[in-house]
Amino acid sequence: MTGALKLYNYFRSSASFRVRIALELKGLGYDYVPVHLLKNEQTAPAYAALTPSLLVPTLIEGDSVLTQSLAIIEYLEETHPEPPLLPADALGRARVRSLALDIACEIHPLNNLRVLRYLVHELKLSEDDKNRWYRHWVEEGLAAFEKRLTGDTATGRFCHGDTPTLADITLVPQIFNAKRLDCRLDDKPRTMAVFEACMAHDAFKRAEPSACPDAA
Amino acid sequence: MTGALKLYNYFRSSASFRVRIALELKGLGYDYVPVHLLKNEQTAPAYAALTPSLLVPTLIEGDSVLTQSLAIIEYLEETHPEPPLLPADALGRARVRSLALDIACEIHPLNNLRVLRYLVHELKLSEDDKNRWYRHWVEEGLAAFEKRLTGDTATGRFCHGDTPTLADITLVPQIFNAKRLDCRLDDKPRTMAVFEACMAHDAFKRAEPSACPDAA
Repeated sequence: MTGALKLYNYFRSSASFRVRIALELKGLGYDYVPVHLLKNEQTAPAYAALTPSLLVPTLIEGDSVLTQSLAIIEYLEETHPEPPLLPADALGRARVRSLALDIACEIHPLNNLRVLRYLVHELKLSEDDKNRWYRHWVEEGLAAFEKRLTGDTATGRFCHGDTPTLADITLVPQIFNAKRLDCRLDDKPRTMAVFEACMAHDAFKRAEPSACPDAA
Repeated sequence: MTGALKLYNYFRSSASFRVRIALELKGLGYDYVPVHLLKNEQTAPAYAALTPSLLVPTLIEGDSVLTQSLAIIEYLEETHPEPPLLPADALGRARVRSLALDIACEIHPLNNLRVLRYLVHELKLSEDDKNRWYRHWVEEGLAAFEKRLTGDTATGRFCHGDTPTLADITLVPQIFNAKRLDCRLDDKPRTMAVFEACMAHDAFKRAEPSACPDAA
């Protein structure tokens, strides 16, 4: 499949990392096209024409341009159903999607690069206040996530049962970021056990930031 | 169907509004349970036990507890497929989901009540700076959304073709909020034309905040 799919992404972007994990879990090869966010490569006219939001990742398949990590992963799930990243039953699917959205809508948007830049450059927040903001949303969000995992027998070795799903794919990049910013994690043992189970899995390891060509 | 479904929600919450629209489009009756966010009713122990994130909406169906508006709507789509809120083709579904996520992940999370409260109470932002923050993300996000709508022949009377989808369901509540906060909208004519088409539709009208029992 190499060459058929092209992923514009950035090694440290959570949303990019999600799509890389999904591609690895599905066993789909892809061309890696780095977009260096710190160098503002996402604002280059060619990329802006592709992705008006100037966000990564963007997946190209033939003439089709796909954006938004969770929409891309749902697309991959529909077009390459094996192995499944969503449970077979509607309630299970709803649980997995809602766990993924608990991170993708409630934690990550508050802490991505453009938001942190706005806090510092436009609102003149100190570095300390910016980091307090960051940790607040990660810790509050993951505390709620931990309650959901511990309070439901559907939780297994992974967030939902014993195989990786969209929920794990969304969780792992958030934990990487939480570690980088020294967020408290030792009070979330179930979440961290799931994270460790994921990181023992080759697909997650192959997708991690340090394994990316632009990580150097 | 009244009585079978119970929706914990708040009239002014965007995410609640999305689910109300979907229920109306599907023709599903439901019991409306108000959770007054300004009075912090979401922190009451009974609600916190149901929804650890303390967010609305929560949909109850029998013994099942469903959270996260987009996951709830995907569930309704799977369990009550008519009328469809997603296109039949995988690429169309990816486009609709990505438009919805452009709002649900890039605009709304930055502007919900708990975030605005944190900016004012914890980071001591002025009312002016808070409103500037609000308008910045709405205007930047909707400008990118407008480019996507105008740049794609798949856009019709609604965001995707001529029937309402998940993208319209997510757009409309965001426009209601944008209007409340005096965000600039006159430079987004295609987006606003879609908004007007939605508001000419009974299901959207029946779901709007002013039609809710807790709006008084």
